[in-house]
Amino acid sequence: DMKVFFPGIEKIQYKPDSGPSDTLCFKHYNASEVVCGRTMEEWCRFSVCYWHTFRGTGADPFGFPTLIRPWEDNSNTIDNAKRRLRAGFEFFSKLGVKYWCFHDRDIAPEGADLTETNKILDEVSDLALELQTETGVKLLWATCNLFAHQRYMNGASTNPNAHIVAYAAAQVKKGLEVAKKLGAENYVFWGGREGYHSILNTDVRAELDHMAAFFKMVVAYKEKIGFTGQLLIEPKPKEPSKHQYDYDAMTVIAFLKTYGLDKDFKINVEPNHTTLAGHSYEHDVIMAAKYNMLGSIDSNTGSPDLGWDTDQFPMDIKNCTMIMKTIIEMGGLAPGGLNFDCKVRRESTALQDMFISHIGAMDALARGLKCAAKLIEEKVMSGLVEERYSSFTSGLGKDLADGNATLEQCEEFVLKNGEPEIASGQQEHYEAILNYYVK
Amino acid sequence: DMKVFFPGIEKIQYKPDSGPSDTLCFKHYNASEVVCGRTMEEWCRFSVCYWHTFRGTGADPFGFPTLIRPWEDNSNTIDNAKRRLRAGFEFFSKLGVKYWCFHDRDIAPEGADLTETNKILDEVSDLALELQTETGVKLLWATCNLFAHQRYMNGASTNPNAHIVAYAAAQVKKGLEVAKKLGAENYVFWGGREGYHSILNTDVRAELDHMAAFFKMVVAYKEKIGFTGQLLIEPKPKEPSKHQYDYDAMTVIAFLKTYGLDKDFKINVEPNHTTLAGHSYEHDVIMAAKYNMLGSIDSNTGSPDLGWDTDQFPMDIKNCTMIMKTIIEMGGLAPGGLNFDCKVRRESTALQDMFISHIGAMDALARGLKCAAKLIEEKVMSGLVEERYSSFTSGLGKDLADGNATLEQCEEFVLKNGEPEIASGQQEHYEAILNYYVK
Amino acid sequence: DMKVFFPGIEKIQYKPDSGPSDTLCFKHYNASEVVCGRTMEEWCRFSVCYWHTFRGTGADPFGFPTLIRPWEDNSNTIDNAKRRLRAGFEFFSKLGVKYWCFHDRDIAPEGADLTETNKILDEVSDLALELQTETGVKLLWATCNLFAHQRYMNGASTNPNAHIVAYAAAQVKKGLEVAKKLGAENYVFWGGREGYHSILNTDVRAELDHMAAFFKMVVAYKEKIGFTGQLLIEPKPKEPSKHQYDYDAMTVIAFLKTYGLDKDFKINVEPNHTTLAGHSYEHDVIMAAKYNMLGSIDSNTGSPDLGWDTDQFPMDIKNCTMIMKTIIEMGGLAPGGLNFDCKVRRESTALQDMFISHIGAMDALARGLKCAAKLIEEKVMSGLVEERYSSFTSGLGKDLADGNATLEQCEEFVLKNGEPEIASGQQEHYEAILNYYVK
Amino acid sequence: DMKVFFPGIEKIQYKPDSGPSDTLCFKHYNASEVVCGRTMEEWCRFSVCYWHTFRGTGADPFGFPTLIRPWEDNSNTIDNAKRRLRAGFEFFSKLGVKYWCFHDRDIAPEGADLTETNKILDEVSDLALELQTETGVKLLWATCNLFAHQRYMNGASTNPNAHIVAYAAAQVKKGLEVAKKLGAENYVFWGGREGYHSILNTDVRAELDHMAAFFKMVVAYKEKIGFTGQLLIEPKPKEPSKHQYDYDAMTVIAFLKTYGLDKDFKINVEPNHTTLAGHSYEHDVIMAAKYNMLGSIDSNTGSPDLGWDTDQFPMDIKNCTMIMKTIIEMGGLAPGGLNFDCKVRRESTALQDMFISHIGAMDALARGLKCAAKLIEEKVMSGLVEERYSSFTSGLGKDLADGNATLEQCEEFVLKNGEPEIASGQQEHYEAILNYYVK
Repeated sequence: DMKVFFPGIEKIQYKPDSGPSDTLCFKHYNASEVVCGRTMEEWCRFSVCYWHTFRGTGADPFGFPTLIRPWEDNSNTIDNAKRRLRAGFEFFSKLGVKYWCFHDRDIAPEGADLTETNKILDEVSDLALELQTETGVKLLWATCNLFAHQRYMNGASTNPNAHIVAYAAAQVKKGLEVAKKLGAENYVFWGGREGYHSILNTDVRAELDHMAAFFKMVVAYKEKIGFTGQLLIEPKPKEPSKHQYDYDAMTVIAFLKTYGLDKDFKINVEPNHTTLAGHSYEHDVIMAAKYNMLGSIDSNTGSPDLGWDTDQFPMDIKNCTMIMKTIIEMGGLAPGGLNFDCKVRRESTALQDMFISHIGAMDALARGLKCAAKLIEEKVMSGLVEERYSSFTSGLGKDLADGNATLEQCEEFVLKNGEPEIASGQQEHYEAILNYYVK
Repeated sequence: DMKVFFPGIEKIQYKPDSGPSDTLCFKHYNASEVVCGRTMEEWCRFSVCYWHTFRGTGADPFGFPTLIRPWEDNSNTIDNAKRRLRAGFEFFSKLGVKYWCFHDRDIAPEGADLTETNKILDEVSDLALELQTETGVKLLWATCNLFAHQRYMNGASTNPNAHIVAYAAAQVKKGLEVAKKLGAENYVFWGGREGYHSILNTDVRAELDHMAAFFKMVVAYKEKIGFTGQLLIEPKPKEPSKHQYDYDAMTVIAFLKTYGLDKDFKINVEPNHTTLAGHSYEHDVIMAAKYNMLGSIDSNTGSPDLGWDTDQFPMDIKNCTMIMKTIIEMGGLAPGGLNFDCKVRRESTALQDMFISHIGAMDALARGLKCAAKLIEEKVMSGLVEERYSSFTSGLGKDLADGNATLEQCEEFVLKNGEPEIASGQQEHYEAILNYYVK
Repeated sequence: DMKVFFPGIEKIQYKPDSGPSDTLCFKHYNASEVVCGRTMEEWCRFSVCYWHTFRGTGADPFGFPTLIRPWEDNSNTIDNAKRRLRAGFEFFSKLGVKYWCFHDRDIAPEGADLTETNKILDEVSDLALELQTETGVKLLWATCNLFAHQRYMNGASTNPNAHIVAYAAAQVKKGLEVAKKLGAENYVFWGGREGYHSILNTDVRAELDHMAAFFKMVVAYKEKIGFTGQLLIEPKPKEPSKHQYDYDAMTVIAFLKTYGLDKDFKINVEPNHTTLAGHSYEHDVIMAAKYNMLGSIDSNTGSPDLGWDTDQFPMDIKNCTMIMKTIIEMGGLAPGGLNFDCKVRRESTALQDMFISHIGAMDALARGLKCAAKLIEEKVMSGLVEERYSSFTSGLGKDLADGNATLEQCEEFVLKNGEPEIASGQQEHYEAILNYYVK
Repeated sequence: DMKVFFPGIEKIQYKPDSGPSDTLCFKHYNASEVVCGRTMEEWCRFSVCYWHTFRGTGADPFGFPTLIRPWEDNSNTIDNAKRRLRAGFEFFSKLGVKYWCFHDRDIAPEGADLTETNKILDEVSDLALELQTETGVKLLWATCNLFAHQRYMNGASTNPNAHIVAYAAAQVKKGLEVAKKLGAENYVFWGGREGYHSILNTDVRAELDHMAAFFKMVVAYKEKIGFTGQLLIEPKPKEPSKHQYDYDAMTVIAFLKTYGLDKDFKINVEPNHTTLAGHSYEHDVIMAAKYNMLGSIDSNTGSPDLGWDTDQFPMDIKNCTMIMKTIIEMGGLAPGGLNFDCKVRRESTALQDMFISHIGAMDALARGLKCAAKLIEEKVMSGLVEERYSSFTSGLGKDLADGNATLEQCEEFVLKNGEPEIASGQQEHYEAILNYYVK
């Protein structure tokens, strides 16, 4: 049996002076380095996702698998699952991340029926627990795969068939139990099939009512078993569905508020989903943060010219700076983290590409962290913003902000004070300042 | 002075047998014809918008005005405003619509200060009232233009300068008073500048808090003066702002719920805004309707290949069928209506193009109404949908739908009943049925 | 062994009076009905694609197969391939189409090496020839799959590895031979991997030079073996590549002209690719037709709100009218045809959905054909267009059109004749006329 | 009369150590600094565009002007035009750019007829010549505005009315004469109205034939008068037209090749147009460069989430690096340059925002130049690419690249050598290397 899965690769080191083609070391991410009062590790809370990195094959709608891994024997056995898990924990450890994430079906194969499936899941998750203890790697979040199996093709909690909704519920019950066992700090729902392909055959209101009822069962069971992880919903506008109900952060908030679930759930924002919903890269992260609804981030990126989810590794320093700025301003992401919901390109077939890609992204976010820290500490930009809104700190402005004004009072003010002065928005000045810090 | 503004055009007639180039008569819209228990006029509640149709010049970011109207003397005088208003009511009457809509600044010019501006607005709206009485044309909704004047370049209710927020409040106060005077059945807020161009210089949370406080002042004043029109928010994702806070229907619901305003406002959906937000044409109309939040429709269309608001006349029979189907199913739009927030193309410079475009759209929606009525009455499609969800009417399905089930109960059900059956979604069958009815 | 693959389904009949839920018969497509001087069958030249309809499984990037076919034994054997082929010809015959299309790897599995693979392809294509003869179904076009195998992940003719280019060349050599054997009327190249994912690692000019050199080898061999089918390139802007070199019709023309290949190739336009390239549905069909470069059409559609290729069945009557109008105006598509590069939705799992979907699309195009025929025959719209450009039939206009004018002559004309008159473009009038004919 | 238009602003200095809010000096652009063997000034050839920067008012489709300039008296007089021109040259000089660009109608108002208009243009362009001589600022390119006047609403060279085509021709004749007088190094055609809004009323082939005939008149007249500037076409996919004929670089090449104009024209690429056409930022710059068709660059950017041309100042260092890398690799842009076809945001109303925005962009491109220079000089990335394609330097690979191979020869090679090896594309490795250099 294999003992070492990544021979020739040692624990990734921080070598700030390494050269351009030395892409197997960190140039910026220095886990224990303190920035803005915390270590980089504490700010970043990096996590590797198991699905792309250990279950991805490189297959796409137009092509066969390309990512051939030496530990895979192409069987759907428990043995294969366990060997793969060991490879995973070697990878996490050598990379130096402290968290991982998975779907139930990523780590363990399905059996002939739910009873057997759950038994297999118990066995494999026992090994996961063992490996967690051994390596110190923790579970950022768990989730159930409620979209890949054919039974879910028309939805899981929103399926038109109650039997299938029940199946999804049973699966989540087990998922919560496993999450508790492994000490998951969060539990995520991504509803890839919770939406519609054709509005002609769909009763959208009934489906959303069912989804809310489903989540209420989840909350009840979570409390019953004493699972303390934060529940998260991950928005995505579309794909595989034509329309997914959890379109973006605001849509999720509308749903949660409508059904009285907003105290029980936060949001797991994935920037590549944000851009597919027509927003700028950082938009949903900022909006969710400002409403205290940002739970965690699936840290990835897409290409702005592509209309589907490419789940690329985040490599753009400006975008990374904006994300880390938001995280520092909200005082940290915990219990959430930066999970790399990213996949190596289908063409990046070498084993070391798995490391290079994660290192590149960790370095990009570490650079972003350092840039954001300086931007925040020097207060040049925040000072400008504060000044810009200063009219709300006294007088009528304060009354307006506090909800103590009336239209009549406003009219009176304008009749007395006339036309307001207009001040430049200075966008290019702000952009130039940002460029000063983004290095 | 001009007495007749559209010489040679009489009241538009219903001539179902007219030929292809007879585009100055209705082939489908027959106001008094009864469909599904109501007249076409009652279902459609057509409205002409004053801004595009009487204030549009054909100017665009790359070109000068092209739409030269004989009643315009190119002055910014009250006389010109009044003559234009008379032209408007002649147009509404000859076209045969029963409603119109306007912004405050569409109908009357601004004066040297707010006092004078309000005085001019009083004078011109007195004439509007007179013309309404004379013609029987009513005011579907009024609104304030809080986006064109330079003072609003950084927002109205979300402006970083409290003085400007106060100005907007004073303007809305007057707007509500005029709306009441003219018997407006609704009052709309479209926040074209309520958003951001650069998130760097913007405190989005403060701005949204201010917007909510602003709306609370509106509700208070509305109640104080006894204005009974429905308040509406019109979502748009972007343009002119990079990001508009009222992105789409669900985002507006999130905002209203967050700030406790959801009992006071409904939504005015504009399909061209819906498509710019990345949804299908009918999506927001249906979603808003299903949550009892659909107040009115700005009935227009865009081109799917264009990334900005083209405000074209709706001419697609399938889209019109989907809209009218939703309206029938919700029991009618009143007090809302189908407002043509549409503009003739910049190149459609002939006076009769104003009629041809509206007639074409009214005919398209009337065809849609007839198609939808038959689709609904024959119950072929609704029967299929009902059957599709029938598992929720009894047993565990009913418990799930009623919120009376638990995860444990679901697990038990699955352990007992095993794998669910999977049924075809039959999308193409539904599409073929729809094509049967869309004629 | 199976003898009948679609029990209970007879040859699809034309029943113009059938009801809305009778979606297993034609309501509009009447093969022998004469329209504009030809039978519907001659105008439409419908073809079924083998890949989606007989090799599609319903798997997508987020889910497992859903389309379980009774003739499949899940083996990669020649027996399975042959049984499937028999099912295919039963389907073509019962549906009543006269053409089919395939990729080499659709019909026959790969062997251990190219020699064995070619031998298998010979054996299975012999059966195809037999079935063609037996049923009268002909081969509209053949193509090679140069994108699914992992060896092509970085391109086929544009691969950075010459060995792989050679492999693709060897595969195409065989493909042309099989095409000739089966009497293919066309031969298509779709270069799904001929493009780049990252411009950083790509020498785009070298790759395009290699692609041109590759096509020259193809032309030479085609002539050598006397294959008389038309060579076609199918544009697509992106997916699976980030950028595909054959972006759209005009890009293909640029490529062909640049490398002197424009006499040897025409274009196979797929409307779902056209819309993904940012054009309107009919744009590339019309542009290619106007430059005598339209070879064939992959008749499908997408959803305008989705950014990837959904390959849906064309069901929109207005779009179908525009396509058929172009085909009539160019005098017919032969030797090309209307190939259904469409797949039933992943959720349309019933066997009869295969028929319902094709029938729905054939009916939509037949309705489009009838609408277009009347639109053309009555000459209302074409008469308006002719009048619109009439100034180019004499005087300076004729000189301009003929290339016989000079800037000096134009200046002289303007100095003498002054400012031109401006005429309405009448877009809404044209749209209303189109709506008259689209029924 | 005004003597100094930007009081308080001196010639912008290079101060590499200035702080974040010092946005009125260069931190990176040092005109005389030598990089890769040339001065920054020679590589960059920066140009200010007159239209946005001196004719832009901040008006947008939803709002009034916001940019109030002290030298404007709101008249359409020659005096105002001349004063504005003096302000322009003060701006160019203080900013330190060596080039400007304009449309004919930017610099001089239209008169009552073409004769008078041309006379005014003579007078104002005489002043421009004087100011050029005085300041040493040169004309990068001139162009005619053939899209703003109502006569061009249906196109200029593609107008359905020959009289209007003649008018455009007369205007271009004068434009070429003025360009010659002012020593323009290039002459640009951007066809904002050369396209269609509705394909129903448009004969696209006739219009394109007319456009080609028009360009042939231009080439003839250019040669007749001895104007030696490079002719350029600027692609844009849409806006204001629904479809513009010059969609992107490849479409322009198709047009030029089709009509035999490819020796006479090159391409002026605007990256914001490239992204609107669905490509990545640098795509058209690279494609045009690789085919020796890149003439000049309208250096700006858009927001990837917006579907219209925002003409923002380029501030992204990675994008700037990619552009400058291409320019260095092609040996420089001359006679083209980097023209800032950018506008300050409508909200950036302060006079100094004009400087801050240009400085920010010049610094971003200067940073890009330095990053690209190091990237190129160290050959890490280019070495990897060279190695990647090395199989084409000998043997069958060389034959393939040279066009000397046959399909038969390829088949033989594969039968002998078997399955090719597959190499990782290493995209993330390349991305990490790029990040090393982008600082």
